[in-house]
Amino acid sequence: MIKNKKNLLILGGLGFIGKNLIDELLDPGDYNLIIFDYNCNLPEEWPKDSVKMYQGNFRSKIDLEKVFQENKIDTVFHLISTTIPSTSNDDILNDIDSNLNSTIFLLDLMKKYKSSKIVFASSGGTVYGLLENENINSFSENYQNNPICSHGIVKLAVEKYLYLYKYLYNIDYLILRIANPFGEGHSSQSQGLINVVISNFVNKKNIIVWGDGKIVRDYIYVKDVAKIIKNIFEKKITNQIINIGSGVGHSVNDIINMIQKVTGKFDVKKAENRKLDVPYSVLDVSKMKSIIDFKLTDIREGIKNTYNYILSQKHE
Amino acid sequence: MIKNKKNLLILGGLGFIGKNLIDELLDPGDYNLIIFDYNCNLPEEWPKDSVKMYQGNFRSKIDLEKVFQENKIDTVFHLISTTIPSTSNDDILNDIDSNLNSTIFLLDLMKKYKSSKIVFASSGGTVYGLLENENINSFSENYQNNPICSHGIVKLAVEKYLYLYKYLYNIDYLILRIANPFGEGHSSQSQGLINVVISNFVNKKNIIVWGDGKIVRDYIYVKDVAKIIKNIFEKKITNQIINIGSGVGHSVNDIINMIQKVTGKFDVKKAENRKLDVPYSVLDVSKMKSIIDFKLTDIREGIKNTYNYILSQKHE
Repeated sequence: MIKNKKNLLILGGLGFIGKNLIDELLDPGDYNLIIFDYNCNLPEEWPKDSVKMYQGNFRSKIDLEKVFQENKIDTVFHLISTTIPSTSNDDILNDIDSNLNSTIFLLDLMKKYKSSKIVFASSGGTVYGLLENENINSFSENYQNNPICSHGIVKLAVEKYLYLYKYLYNIDYLILRIANPFGEGHSSQSQGLINVVISNFVNKKNIIVWGDGKIVRDYIYVKDVAKIIKNIFEKKITNQIINIGSGVGHSVNDIINMIQKVTGKFDVKKAENRKLDVPYSVLDVSKMKSIIDFKLTDIREGIKNTYNYILSQKHE
Repeated sequence: MIKNKKNLLILGGLGFIGKNLIDELLDPGDYNLIIFDYNCNLPEEWPKDSVKMYQGNFRSKIDLEKVFQENKIDTVFHLISTTIPSTSNDDILNDIDSNLNSTIFLLDLMKKYKSSKIVFASSGGTVYGLLENENINSFSENYQNNPICSHGIVKLAVEKYLYLYKYLYNIDYLILRIANPFGEGHSSQSQGLINVVISNFVNKKNIIVWGDGKIVRDYIYVKDVAKIIKNIFEKKITNQIINIGSGVGHSVNDIINMIQKVTGKFDVKKAENRKLDVPYSVLDVSKMKSIIDFKLTDIREGIKNTYNYILSQKHE
């Protein structure tokens, strides 16, 4: 690692957002990046002198403390989530243990080893719950929080503990409530409509849509997410909650149509509606826009890039 | 137990609010009351045919499930808290485990054994955090929630899971954010200003006050709390969050003066201010008042009753 550069710890650095964020943080290369992930397959193009890998389990106190013992961590980017919204209600105690309790332990390590700041990837799609006010069409950061899945409640509880650790121990936080990211580097087969549909199309698998296709979400291109996170971080914005999204809603049917404009027609199977799916979730991103001056990638272009990426992965 | 009466389970039924609530629910005697508590010293005046005791540990799944196996529980009154605000930050994982995880298990039992409703004693004094809006002087139920102690965060998380279990499994909830109760039946030596001061006076112990005595709280007589809970419950109000308090703020110094008018003068020792004490906490109780028509006991009369009660306990 290079002296006189800040050490940033990226928890979940090989995950979807993590990989894209690291690509951004490596350009031009102002930081030492310490990655903690349960995987360890570092992309070859990442420079060895400014990227250091720790393979470990977020639930393991020993794994996590080793990183702090061996490195002076300035800022932690906490991008780990051990659960996804759609299954988090099936084992709530596991959700609490693996996400909330592990984060409390992380915060205690930051206090013990004097890290100054944490950037937390919260969930713009689940912390708000249902849109019950007819006069608005997007969730601002101060909208009520009544999640309809445990994943959202645990994210919210983590946010509250970040506030508490700032109050008690002066650890700065930056809470980013991220909408539905899509794009390069995605690997989940169970969440992320755009990536899963394109991937299933490319790999000739069934394409299944829950409900009538009218569910609306706020999709944002993952490379935009990475750029925005870096941008807000470098502006030294702290102790804020900020929605990160496009501010625009698209229904599942819209998305299928947009994808088919790129891939050509395909069949879609319908499955029963899932109660844990909020029917409508779009973020009010006026706060984000007031902080950074940034033109988001057009969703059609993002979908095209995603398709080309998934095709290239197949041919490898 | 008497047939054709509803079975109410009172978790923490021998605690401060629990005992007073049971006194109310026994008058005129419309319910079978099943008590779950870690103590088992039932007051002799409680009728044996409508009060049934289970001694157990709230953290024990076996202890808790036994109650549901042996009784058809209609409504659960959840009055248990294993932590207090002032020490909850010292062991957050314990706070989460003993209060949040145990409540998730309780909710799963209610789902399994088809209980229809839960009444939860939340914390009006800690779920809101700091009053940061200069234009208001009390916390309404939709004020922001930024607790400065783990106790408040865990209470809030429980509230969110109650909402979720209503949404997913149709278990009705009633969330009561109770202010600072005082009065007969209190036993804690570490929280509850009015009771601790009077008790220390009667028992000739040192009377210690943290900070400059200007901390303001919303005090409510515990017999009023019990009457209000019964009243709201019997009005079949469900799926609401309701502040339960006096709506009036008194500083520590005010309270000391009011107590001295009853007891005569005593010395007060000052200790350092505690960061976990919110400087100002008064509840907006307009929602409560819109539901029930009830005249609260004057605080001076409540203090007099409390003093007489503590004196009578000493002579026993």
